[in-house]
Amino acid sequence: MNTYQLQVVENTNKKEKPVKDQVPFGTTFTDHMYVLEYETEKGWYDPKIVPYGPISLDPAAMIFHYGQTVFEGMKAYHTEDGRVLLFRPEKNFERLNLSSERLSIPALDEKLALEHLTALIKLEKDWVPKTPGTSLYIRPYIISTDANLAVGPSQTYKYMVILSPVGSYFPGGLQPVVIHVEDKFTRAVKGGTGMAKTAGNYSSGYQAQANAKKEGNADVLWLDGVEKKYIEEVGSMNIFFKINGEVITPELNGSILKGITRMSIIELLDTWGIKVTEKRMSIDELYEAYDAGHVEEVFGTGTAAVISPVGELNWKGKKMIVNNHEIGELSQKIYDTITGIQTGKIEDTLGWTVEVK
Amino acid sequence: MNTYQLQVVENTNKKEKPVKDQVPFGTTFTDHMYVLEYETEKGWYDPKIVPYGPISLDPAAMIFHYGQTVFEGMKAYHTEDGRVLLFRPEKNFERLNLSSERLSIPALDEKLALEHLTALIKLEKDWVPKTPGTSLYIRPYIISTDANLAVGPSQTYKYMVILSPVGSYFPGGLQPVVIHVEDKFTRAVKGGTGMAKTAGNYSSGYQAQANAKKEGNADVLWLDGVEKKYIEEVGSMNIFFKINGEVITPELNGSILKGITRMSIIELLDTWGIKVTEKRMSIDELYEAYDAGHVEEVFGTGTAAVISPVGELNWKGKKMIVNNHEIGELSQKIYDTITGIQTGKIEDTLGWTVEVK
Repeated sequence: MNTYQLQVVENTNKKEKPVKDQVPFGTTFTDHMYVLEYETEKGWYDPKIVPYGPISLDPAAMIFHYGQTVFEGMKAYHTEDGRVLLFRPEKNFERLNLSSERLSIPALDEKLALEHLTALIKLEKDWVPKTPGTSLYIRPYIISTDANLAVGPSQTYKYMVILSPVGSYFPGGLQPVVIHVEDKFTRAVKGGTGMAKTAGNYSSGYQAQANAKKEGNADVLWLDGVEKKYIEEVGSMNIFFKINGEVITPELNGSILKGITRMSIIELLDTWGIKVTEKRMSIDELYEAYDAGHVEEVFGTGTAAVISPVGELNWKGKKMIVNNHEIGELSQKIYDTITGIQTGKIEDTLGWTVEVK
Repeated sequence: MNTYQLQVVENTNKKEKPVKDQVPFGTTFTDHMYVLEYETEKGWYDPKIVPYGPISLDPAAMIFHYGQTVFEGMKAYHTEDGRVLLFRPEKNFERLNLSSERLSIPALDEKLALEHLTALIKLEKDWVPKTPGTSLYIRPYIISTDANLAVGPSQTYKYMVILSPVGSYFPGGLQPVVIHVEDKFTRAVKGGTGMAKTAGNYSSGYQAQANAKKEGNADVLWLDGVEKKYIEEVGSMNIFFKINGEVITPELNGSILKGITRMSIIELLDTWGIKVTEKRMSIDELYEAYDAGHVEEVFGTGTAAVISPVGELNWKGKKMIVNNHEIGELSQKIYDTITGIQTGKIEDTLGWTVEVK
């Protein structure tokens, strides 16, 4: 990794920041972005913070044709005492490299990536919104840039980071959602790319999601690609169940994303003396537990929402109403604790936050 | 579809054409490209032929993050009497729209797309190479362009066509290749995007292909994603077998690409009185037939190579040598006939070619 000195080109034409902190997710971007280049012969080189603006690519750039790309999603939070915190960012860079391995993309230096991210956020500190529930969404991503239509790994890449202030995911408090259990379309399968955060995993779900929305569902619960039987993920989140006092989440099997919120909840609950059972769980098993009156809470977990309670599941015409469409006690407690740690309201005894200094 | 009048901005700074017709696949592009825009409110609009050059996109453009994109691959051929022929282009646009449906991308007007493609190729006629075996590769593709990180279908798209002169796939004549039967990684599964020509399907195969190459194989044969038992595709081609006189190809099951060369071979063989059996075929069944001495020919089919004979298969340490690593009689005859029709050497009694006039 040569030529690794970070250069900063400051934007002299700064944008106005959103007046309210309730901007739609992912549509407003800050004044600067980070760019790092890769060539096979040089490795990663030329790290730069530059004014946010369009990127210019050859129409034959591989990203447009063969989808060799990975990304991450994370957030920076403002604390009441004016600090800016990141939540376990090293886990995101670790996962980015895991995703890259699956997509035959060269690995980043995780330590340097975090250093440069910190430099970018420091420069954009005023963009981290302050209203409770808001944050600065961080999108690191790598695209393949060779102008070459031969199917195969690119020799050149761009790693970039863009930042977007985001409003509260639940401006009116946690709202349980209605979810369709998808039994036709498949998100991922063993041996595929399900465990990687790569573009193709997302658009492949649009058709199922559109169908589900037509029937009044907010999103879909994905079942495994082999038997359409085992529970995998909800929308682009991991999923947890509280059944007869036991907390259960599907085990990481190669087709489920290794969520950092998922991991944090398992660790957090451990400190509370609650064991999370990671196992293969069938949708039948869930409905049987429901019929027996044992399904107490269901919630999705991810960076965007932290916790998204599920109030209703619809599977082949069978409706499951969870906790009377209300948020469960444990869901709320996990949400309050994790967001509390993220925003510095609760002491971070687990060493999860990294201050941007 | 308003504002649908094709505009042409001619390139005044034309490139030199390759001196030899043996340029590496997909790295040289012609002087012009075609661009058509989409906005939800306007539909597809503003078709243009413009000088080939970089495209500028917001770093948050959806193509970089969620992979909502589709493409096609087709070729234009020079005939000895100076005409330029396309091979069943209407089938490519039909399939492009099928792929788009799966990826929640709005459909193109197939007739207009072909009209505008013809106009582009007419303008670039001098770029269609003339040496036997060469052609002008045509890459139509659609990318999602909203600057929006919210997961969901884009409201804006670009449909583009770029052209690339390509050398002969087999400059020294048809060469049978060595193929690894992949039993770990998965290309596609029922309910996924396997039948669509979309970016994510291609880069997801790189890791398996790299592993196979390390062991001396040219590419991989994909098995089904559920049982790793049934034969699907070879590399990015469909596959055919001649076993004990019977021609067999895997049936279209939702995870196999609906190849236009595949379809054409089935139709062509029908005119020769040879029935192609489309069926689910397991890799065990193939090896049993081999052990009984019945495997006569194996070949991949696709736009790039037309026919790519398979000389050897390697599955879990079991080596299958096909026809003594030599091209089979039927494979050669199919190759000669289809390339003959494509290049006007053989009369097109099936109405497959479209002349660019």
